[in-house]
Amino acid sequence: MTMKKTLRLDEAAAMAGGQLRGDGAITVSGFAAIDAAGPSDMTFLARAKDRHLLASCRAACVLVPPGVGEAPLPVIEVADPYLGVAILHTYLLAQPFVTTGVHKTAFIGKDCSIPEEVSIGPNVVLGDRVRLGARTRLDAGVVLGDDVTLGDDCWMKANVTIAHATLIGNRVIVDSGTVIGSDGFGYTPDNTGRFHKRPQVGIVRIEDEVEIGACCCVDRATFGETVISHGVKIDNLVQIAHNVVIGANSILTAQVAIAGSASLGRNVIMGGASKSKGHIHIGDRVQVAAASGIHNSVPAGATVAGVPAIDARKWLKTSAIYQRLPEMYSELKKLRAEVAALKAASHTAPNPDGGDND
Amino acid sequence: MTMKKTLRLDEAAAMAGGQLRGDGAITVSGFAAIDAAGPSDMTFLARAKDRHLLASCRAACVLVPPGVGEAPLPVIEVADPYLGVAILHTYLLAQPFVTTGVHKTAFIGKDCSIPEEVSIGPNVVLGDRVRLGARTRLDAGVVLGDDVTLGDDCWMKANVTIAHATLIGNRVIVDSGTVIGSDGFGYTPDNTGRFHKRPQVGIVRIEDEVEIGACCCVDRATFGETVISHGVKIDNLVQIAHNVVIGANSILTAQVAIAGSASLGRNVIMGGASKSKGHIHIGDRVQVAAASGIHNSVPAGATVAGVPAIDARKWLKTSAIYQRLPEMYSELKKLRAEVAALKAASHTAPNPDGGDND
Amino acid sequence: MTMKKTLRLDEAAAMAGGQLRGDGAITVSGFAAIDAAGPSDMTFLARAKDRHLLASCRAACVLVPPGVGEAPLPVIEVADPYLGVAILHTYLLAQPFVTTGVHKTAFIGKDCSIPEEVSIGPNVVLGDRVRLGARTRLDAGVVLGDDVTLGDDCWMKANVTIAHATLIGNRVIVDSGTVIGSDGFGYTPDNTGRFHKRPQVGIVRIEDEVEIGACCCVDRATFGETVISHGVKIDNLVQIAHNVVIGANSILTAQVAIAGSASLGRNVIMGGASKSKGHIHIGDRVQVAAASGIHNSVPAGATVAGVPAIDARKWLKTSAIYQRLPEMYSELKKLRAEVAALKAASHTAPNPDGGDND
Repeated sequence: MTMKKTLRLDEAAAMAGGQLRGDGAITVSGFAAIDAAGPSDMTFLARAKDRHLLASCRAACVLVPPGVGEAPLPVIEVADPYLGVAILHTYLLAQPFVTTGVHKTAFIGKDCSIPEEVSIGPNVVLGDRVRLGARTRLDAGVVLGDDVTLGDDCWMKANVTIAHATLIGNRVIVDSGTVIGSDGFGYTPDNTGRFHKRPQVGIVRIEDEVEIGACCCVDRATFGETVISHGVKIDNLVQIAHNVVIGANSILTAQVAIAGSASLGRNVIMGGASKSKGHIHIGDRVQVAAASGIHNSVPAGATVAGVPAIDARKWLKTSAIYQRLPEMYSELKKLRAEVAALKAASHTAPNPDGGDND
Repeated sequence: MTMKKTLRLDEAAAMAGGQLRGDGAITVSGFAAIDAAGPSDMTFLARAKDRHLLASCRAACVLVPPGVGEAPLPVIEVADPYLGVAILHTYLLAQPFVTTGVHKTAFIGKDCSIPEEVSIGPNVVLGDRVRLGARTRLDAGVVLGDDVTLGDDCWMKANVTIAHATLIGNRVIVDSGTVIGSDGFGYTPDNTGRFHKRPQVGIVRIEDEVEIGACCCVDRATFGETVISHGVKIDNLVQIAHNVVIGANSILTAQVAIAGSASLGRNVIMGGASKSKGHIHIGDRVQVAAASGIHNSVPAGATVAGVPAIDARKWLKTSAIYQRLPEMYSELKKLRAEVAALKAASHTAPNPDGGDND
Repeated sequence: MTMKKTLRLDEAAAMAGGQLRGDGAITVSGFAAIDAAGPSDMTFLARAKDRHLLASCRAACVLVPPGVGEAPLPVIEVADPYLGVAILHTYLLAQPFVTTGVHKTAFIGKDCSIPEEVSIGPNVVLGDRVRLGARTRLDAGVVLGDDVTLGDDCWMKANVTIAHATLIGNRVIVDSGTVIGSDGFGYTPDNTGRFHKRPQVGIVRIEDEVEIGACCCVDRATFGETVISHGVKIDNLVQIAHNVVIGANSILTAQVAIAGSASLGRNVIMGGASKSKGHIHIGDRVQVAAASGIHNSVPAGATVAGVPAIDARKWLKTSAIYQRLPEMYSELKKLRAEVAALKAASHTAPNPDGGDND
């Protein structure tokens, strides 16, 4: 039972912090891609150089970046159209929380604290002493272990598993198949080669406004806490090992892996499938190219690439030259031969200057 | 209650498009590896050079490639024994669909369309308006969100999650733990460094005869569709981002990742753990070596390897020489010294030709 | 209802095979990190060079490595403090098995063999003919297919899926989201480019004391068995393809992938996100650096790194020089020019020795 929201273009411009060129009284109720938007939709143009797309656009209004110039339809000029989409589309879609209560097939453990305003789906299982915040939504098949705490406005999607004692803040979204609080990976060999498990008795703590994608694993700490700080966004199939700390507003793209006890600063961006060694620190605002492997701590503000990761500009040059290795190798062999010939010639030749350079 | 099927060798040869050398009236009812096959089994020899294995083989018949020559037991010569196995073993195993109906612990939402001939296991959860085709099998713990559509003869294995509005064709198999329709990964920072979510309102569409392995993630589109075309086969732990299009009959091996809005042509083969950047096109029939990272679009028919991926033959040469870098480096230093010495010698030497070269 | 266990320091020293320096009658009941341990806790110091941390430590006793010298509190000197922790902390935490029986929402198939002493949680689903050992624990949402066998003292955590006919030994732990017995990835193209599935009729066999992390996939064999041998420890998001054999006491760190029919010897250590090609053998005690890609068989005892993986010491040197490729490239160009100039000079120069070298 969704309620269709509408927005006047002058309101939209104010919300997005942009400049409207067009009739502020026009209303929109949806968002769509530029080639699919209809007369009640808003859309966006990511790059000014694509302005030719405006000619055939049927939307009510287009969010445009600076530099588009005259447009054949109403536009709102904003510094970053993607940010405008995020703000306005989110506003149009937002709906009041719908409480469905606790489904009759859900199983609730002992001494749980569950507010009235929740939606707990079929086959959800809660352990003992679980505490849920207001407007929590747990979709079908979610399992929360003993002593798990969730804040307000959280959404655990179908088949998410949150192991015992995990602490989760407010407005946290976790996508399906993800496991939070799995055991850290800690084994020590004895002198027969047999590995002994080191107990993993710490927890995972996730702060407010974190989003975690599908099929991720966040391991509990050996002792203490594995921490995902405020505003961190994590894509799918990401591995966070025990005792890792991810700083606020960092981005971990799909298939990233952070090994044990590594720490990331604030606003770090890890590209897809990039990996970090354990026990190192990746400074604030570091950007890591996709498929990189970080072996050493990285200072704040750096941009790195490669395995092992180096300065990204250097890596770009280096990897371009990498392709010329075979040609460099044969060039080196030729030079070796030529230099040898030159040396031989200079040795066998009678000394032209008669020995007076001593 | 499986029914044992049998096959005469002459029928088998016809089905596999091969040439029988032996008694066509012999029957087989199973398949096994060459060292485990018994007298009612068929088996296969992958490579002609392994023909010595035929001597001790106890099978009723062996699928062999060309070039095996005389054999001590009945053989069917085929162009590709693996294809012969796929066709004949599949035939022998195929069983009529067994309808078990809807398990009493399954939860079915409102206004669903469910044919009589289905098998829906324990604890399966269907949202509202789900439409299932004939002979659909949903194993224990499967969750289908609202408005999901599945075609005929689909099989979702235990604990698969299909999020709302996903469209799935006919004869699609999805293995356990996989999540289809997870949110795309789209966030935009504001000037405080905080990331805002861009709503992901598109869907995932999966065409006929697609198979997807275990613990994969296929993200829904931001707008529009993420598409897995006809006949695509996907291994385990594969990541498909929002708005990706995978062309027909492509192969994605385990741990592949395709970033947002990338498109693959038909019959592309991505080796294990290879990755593609977003917003690029990988042409028809491209083959990507395992562990490669594709940074730029790749023309049809190319074979590439490395990070960033280059022509595979070039990469083979290059990576072989890569190991010689330390020796190249010291060679270069030696040459530098020798050339400097040669230059010094030629400069300090009295000009042999008395200055008349002007 | 956990029972707090205590340990005298003299008992602890004996158990850990160490030397106590301090009062053997003191008792401890817990373990904590060195900066968090209180007067009833034991803790550990990993490296002798961190001995300054002992000054402010409030623990009852510290496990220390050799070389720490005089200490301001009781210490037990052991060869490997991590091993001491593993042994003593595990002892303190160990609790008798608590039988909760079969939860009323669990679904048990036909002809299963279930001992009295088990704990089967909510929404667990067992297929037909499943056999469970004593003291087996199956957490919420676990699905075991037909004909699965589990030994004694196994623990399958929430939302684990074990497909049909899988054989699991004693004391095996599998973390949430993991799938054992998914189909192997085997398809063969016909001459139209369409891929045909090769039936995967083998099984997975897991021996005693194996531990497998979260969101892993272990594929069943095409024919025969995929084998995880005694004592193997596997981290999260690991891929084991069909017919792989992992030798005893091997370690597979997060995001490792082992392609089809590869075999690992005993005590192999695969670093995080390292990959192995199929149909090769990795010898006993091989150590593979994180993010490596193995293309060829590796002899016993080797330590390898890189893609393709080479001797690790060589790789370290090579990857250090890799960064100097741009400088090597321009050096090579300079040398080429200088050698050309030297050659030109030696050619154009009048022969200094009057032509008598003919």
